[in-house]
Amino acid sequence: MTHDDAVRSLDQYLKEQKAVIDRALDSYLPAAETYPPVIFESMRYSVFAGGKRLRPILCVAAAEAVRGREETVLPVACALEMIHTYSLIHDDLPAMDDDDYRRGRPTNHKVFGDGIAILAGDALLTEAFSLMSRRDLMTGVNGERLLQVIAEVSRAAGCFGMIGGQVADLQSEGAAVDEETLHYIHVHKTEALISVSLRAGSLLSEGRDDELAALTEYGKKIGLAFQIADDILDIESTREVLGKDIGSDQEKNKMTYPALFGIERSRRKAGELVQGALADLERFDERAWPLRAIANFIVDRKS
Amino acid sequence: MTHDDAVRSLDQYLKEQKAVIDRALDSYLPAAETYPPVIFESMRYSVFAGGKRLRPILCVAAAEAVRGREETVLPVACALEMIHTYSLIHDDLPAMDDDDYRRGRPTNHKVFGDGIAILAGDALLTEAFSLMSRRDLMTGVNGERLLQVIAEVSRAAGCFGMIGGQVADLQSEGAAVDEETLHYIHVHKTEALISVSLRAGSLLSEGRDDELAALTEYGKKIGLAFQIADDILDIESTREVLGKDIGSDQEKNKMTYPALFGIERSRRKAGELVQGALADLERFDERAWPLRAIANFIVDRKS
Repeated sequence: MTHDDAVRSLDQYLKEQKAVIDRALDSYLPAAETYPPVIFESMRYSVFAGGKRLRPILCVAAAEAVRGREETVLPVACALEMIHTYSLIHDDLPAMDDDDYRRGRPTNHKVFGDGIAILAGDALLTEAFSLMSRRDLMTGVNGERLLQVIAEVSRAAGCFGMIGGQVADLQSEGAAVDEETLHYIHVHKTEALISVSLRAGSLLSEGRDDELAALTEYGKKIGLAFQIADDILDIESTREVLGKDIGSDQEKNKMTYPALFGIERSRRKAGELVQGALADLERFDERAWPLRAIANFIVDRKS
Repeated sequence: MTHDDAVRSLDQYLKEQKAVIDRALDSYLPAAETYPPVIFESMRYSVFAGGKRLRPILCVAAAEAVRGREETVLPVACALEMIHTYSLIHDDLPAMDDDDYRRGRPTNHKVFGDGIAILAGDALLTEAFSLMSRRDLMTGVNGERLLQVIAEVSRAAGCFGMIGGQVADLQSEGAAVDEETLHYIHVHKTEALISVSLRAGSLLSEGRDDELAALTEYGKKIGLAFQIADDILDIESTREVLGKDIGSDQEKNKMTYPALFGIERSRRKAGELVQGALADLERFDERAWPLRAIANFIVDRKS
């Protein structure tokens, strides 16, 4: 496959998978007419704001890499997207990062007000756990394995994971931050949830222990590469492409990889992580091609 | 037992149970020295702010009423208290009820700022699910039953339960509210979590179906009675006793039972609910005495 063919093929895969995830999310989320409607409108506004669905797509791809099936992991995959969306809604609040735009649209609190935005985030987080415990949707899954997934996802999303990262990020604004703190923020804020997405896909599909370990390593590396690529985009992209304010990290004096090491060194670091992630996938057959393609192109994306 | 004996005996029981719950919460929550410390300080500040631990106590009492053991349900009981605490932290925020005091102390955001308060609430909600999925603490519990409890708790806490009630409450401020809306708010904001506390205690202890149904009915009734008693206290108590601003419901033009029906009719309604709750307990033996005592005195409390 040439480079261009691979891009086309991944583009097609991502488009198809996004459609599958979007349909599933739509079926799992309550209709906007449910009482009281504003909370359901607010939840849906942010869930259907054009996200790439990276976490659910990785979860499904990990399941397929270990010979599992999409249907088995779809509820947990969508729960991971709900958790990601709740974190964006809360991060954008005036009391946190105070962002007015995301993906080209006004942020949740700009449309619904701070109170409803907080509650919509709370509701998405809670619904994520509700969805992960729906046995009627996951009859083929081992109950103990499902409990393990709930335990791992809650840990990755909580104060030892994503929330811990956001706290450190919030406190680092305007302060001099060292490499260790920056690493803590990245590992916890982004990598933890990406890594657990892959683990969940493998666990629910009864992947072997060595496969689970390899996917975990792969997830850590592309999670960090993804965050570095994001920070470079914040500097280099345009508002039209990115759909949010450009240079907002710099403006807030936020610590990032490019700010600490410069763009070139950051790009090199991201490239090394991708090579490492590909090496982690060596034990897998052709079923893992989307995971390989995602690693290759994660640093090439434009938005 | 005379009335005074019963009060003394319940007082003693509640004090002992509160100590058990407090010790368990302390052991389940991360130490305040964990990095980044501010989030753990903030979580602990509100968890250990002198709450009555009504929900965990009801969970344990329900377990004991169906011949179960305290140790079996303690993690889930504490998770319910974490969910209750998160909801108080978020409700008190300026974007919501904007309260400066709770239980005689400044509210979480007055001490830690809005951003950390939002994250501390998020973290407590997430940790609650983490705790409920910890198999190492609940080896004696059936896995499928535990998944059912997680499903029921998330539903009671989410947009079909507590969050739905808070949204309706938020939107009713300053507006003319009818009895139906007021009932929706009470049922969802308070009753749902109280009722599921009793169900969780029974489910985890393998209570019979008829016992589960009776405890659910009991929970609905005392949950509503508790809310009505709370609203009466808001009008009649003093700041020193209640530890928060008195008459704050009236000031915000919040719809309450006493505002809609007057204090006397509200008191009568609460009394009827308690009688109904006691009738629901008829099938239980003397193991259910704390549940009976709690129903009797829920409307007599001073704070």
